[in-house]
Amino acid sequence: MTERTKFILDESQIPAQWYNVIPDLPAPPPPPLHPGTLQPVGPDDLAPLFPMELIGQEVTADPYVDIPGEVIDVYKLWRPTPLFRARRLEKLLNTPARIYYKYEGVSPAGSHKPNTAVPQAYYNSVEGTKRLTTETGAGQWGSALAFATAQYGLDCEIWMVRASYDQKPYRRTMMQTWGATVHPSPSRATQAGLSVLAADPDSPGSLGIAISEAVEAAAGSAETRYALGSVLNHVLMHQTVIGQEAVAQFGMAGETGPDLIVGCTGGGSNFAGLFFPFLREKLAGRINPVIRAVEPSACPSFTRGIYAYDFGDTAGFTPLLKMHTLGHQFIPDPVHAGGLRYHGMSPLLSHMYELGLFEAVAKPQRECFAAAITFARAEGIIPAPEPSHAIAAVVEEAKRCAESGEEKVILTALCGHGHFDMVAYERYLSGEMTDFDLPQERIDAALANLPAV
Amino acid sequence: MTERTKFILDESQIPAQWYNVIPDLPAPPPPPLHPGTLQPVGPDDLAPLFPMELIGQEVTADPYVDIPGEVIDVYKLWRPTPLFRARRLEKLLNTPARIYYKYEGVSPAGSHKPNTAVPQAYYNSVEGTKRLTTETGAGQWGSALAFATAQYGLDCEIWMVRASYDQKPYRRTMMQTWGATVHPSPSRATQAGLSVLAADPDSPGSLGIAISEAVEAAAGSAETRYALGSVLNHVLMHQTVIGQEAVAQFGMAGETGPDLIVGCTGGGSNFAGLFFPFLREKLAGRINPVIRAVEPSACPSFTRGIYAYDFGDTAGFTPLLKMHTLGHQFIPDPVHAGGLRYHGMSPLLSHMYELGLFEAVAKPQRECFAAAITFARAEGIIPAPEPSHAIAAVVEEAKRCAESGEEKVILTALCGHGHFDMVAYERYLSGEMTDFDLPQERIDAALANLPAV
Repeated sequence: MTERTKFILDESQIPAQWYNVIPDLPAPPPPPLHPGTLQPVGPDDLAPLFPMELIGQEVTADPYVDIPGEVIDVYKLWRPTPLFRARRLEKLLNTPARIYYKYEGVSPAGSHKPNTAVPQAYYNSVEGTKRLTTETGAGQWGSALAFATAQYGLDCEIWMVRASYDQKPYRRTMMQTWGATVHPSPSRATQAGLSVLAADPDSPGSLGIAISEAVEAAAGSAETRYALGSVLNHVLMHQTVIGQEAVAQFGMAGETGPDLIVGCTGGGSNFAGLFFPFLREKLAGRINPVIRAVEPSACPSFTRGIYAYDFGDTAGFTPLLKMHTLGHQFIPDPVHAGGLRYHGMSPLLSHMYELGLFEAVAKPQRECFAAAITFARAEGIIPAPEPSHAIAAVVEEAKRCAESGEEKVILTALCGHGHFDMVAYERYLSGEMTDFDLPQERIDAALANLPAV
Repeated sequence: MTERTKFILDESQIPAQWYNVIPDLPAPPPPPLHPGTLQPVGPDDLAPLFPMELIGQEVTADPYVDIPGEVIDVYKLWRPTPLFRARRLEKLLNTPARIYYKYEGVSPAGSHKPNTAVPQAYYNSVEGTKRLTTETGAGQWGSALAFATAQYGLDCEIWMVRASYDQKPYRRTMMQTWGATVHPSPSRATQAGLSVLAADPDSPGSLGIAISEAVEAAAGSAETRYALGSVLNHVLMHQTVIGQEAVAQFGMAGETGPDLIVGCTGGGSNFAGLFFPFLREKLAGRINPVIRAVEPSACPSFTRGIYAYDFGDTAGFTPLLKMHTLGHQFIPDPVHAGGLRYHGMSPLLSHMYELGLFEAVAKPQRECFAAAITFARAEGIIPAPEPSHAIAAVVEEAKRCAESGEEKVILTALCGHGHFDMVAYERYLSGEMTDFDLPQERIDAALANLPAV
């Protein structure tokens, strides 16, 4: 009865600042480039889409940025989030490893996404934005933004990939419950949508098309701006509330620090949010963890992509970003971890990977679901498909420790619950889930179409 | 920034005992009767279905019962649960009332049900049970028991009403993820199911049929027992962890006590769990709250039922229970709050209602969903349809306070989230949800078939 299961901070211990890792790096990441001029993108280029405060945060050299009180007031609805010691999983795996997980599924939207949706909605409201637009695939990000905009009285308009809109109506209803307008994409509300529908009235849509529609809707109206849920520097910075809390909770647990930090990566924000504050400790020489990204083997931008300038979207409307990419025309196979199906990677994380600050592995989805079910039966929480990738890597490491006898301290982020992903579990449990081969020719073909820089 | 949103206890403050309200009442509730002999049911009658410890708890005169350490170890996966001050809802309603809600949706199964599923599974495991059976409608209780049995290595076999099994597959998959076997009911696995299928091969099933199947499967095997998720005294007692924590959290909040306690009632366990510990304070003269049950107007056992001996199930297999009932053959209209669609009411709560210890009101479902959406947009959490009944009564009272200027302190239980109920929200938002009239003749017809006692 003396063994603790979770480490809970008081809401007065919600971090007062976000941590900006860039000043602690030996060199800053290469800037985004305008695709026409190939010159670095400036604030004026971004002003139609983002509020000035976020444009400033994107390039700030300050090591910390204050979190506004009005943002903390909303964070208090679910933050601080718990850090759990996975004692029951350890016992099940018969491992001497000590496994900790930081659980972000307690947010209203059920993932880490509100950590950035809330400040993005807040800064927009302060700067006079009346309406935010965005795109969403399966709906994690869209629901986070719908929740956040409701908190500040902004309208929210979301383009949801048609296939998900029709087949996964529950997150759509969640967004509508919070007051958002949800369009199937391609829609008749934008020129981009209309032109796709003219060519193919039955188009199932894609994230690339949905981005185009959301950006067009924002650019065309002075009171409307656009919000992005991952990839950008300010988004990763907002997520550092996760790691800052976890550093404090590690102290409560009496641990010096983790020996291994594991996170799943799609655009990279959840992984970055967890490990940046620990990396700060590592760069200061206080701890020395191995840091490991886990990506789906169906979309392996770190492990099989190249580091090059590429577009952030399929259609090629965004600035050019220097990043690990499979090519902006790469279409990942339909794995259930929709949040990890992105051809590129955060430019900041890509730069740090090149600097050797962390390593990366790729996992096929059936191994991930097997690990997620083991986790659910031991710890009770049913993970979303995305963090099941991190859990698979944790289980692998814990089994290695069971063989070697190493008492390794492992930390991971359980970035969301799987309540809206039960179809994926059903497919796994019924034996209908498949893994996908990714022949090198498919990657090569997509990489052949990189923009010339 | 000095205003607190939530009150969090440390896991060392999980209650060490459950509170038994019965010794504090002026008289105990009338006993259940054997339907053949009309004599009180004894331990021997119940032993094939329940472990001896739970049979003892059902009739104990002890004011407190120790919670085993092995149960607290599992409670630690989500308990203590947070008490929230609903500041953003108060602001939206412009009310001087102070609204608090105790949130049980943080449990792995997403409701208060695991508070009793866990000890039921534990005592069964200690007494040698290898397999537990139960019935479930929409799946809240079934998923709680599936989670709990996984924690103690028991098999779990669940009969799920066929209509829900086919139309609401997500909670079914959740149960299977935790390792349970789920049968559509009526099934070919029991005589009860076979005889229903012989008469109607396409039967959509009912909770009454599912109970019959689960009881038959338990009674027929020495290593198999049965678990019930509400109604019984020991179930209500297990839920008092909710109210005991809330009493401590009210102290943290600097409140003397609530002026009004509101809870939704189906079988009654969530409401009882919240208010019993506060009633104890009230009976000792320390606080004086009004206590109010809220039931669906489509199934109004308190407000339009009678207090009489009746069967607990539709088919008439259970002991006779003295309770508020609409008649065991009453079939409620298909409101979305499936957990409140029960013809009867906990005998203990029915007895206490007769003693005048609390009041009751009934709400139509559209008013409840309107209140739930107001709540979701303010507080972020999307409530399950069941607690939306309590929220509707809270909103009503808060608006009353806005008119009168009364600074009333209101406490309610948000007993679960609505992540598996988005179809209901979709129907409300699209204008397709209806309320149901309940003509007196329908109640009279069902009450005409009460057993003769």
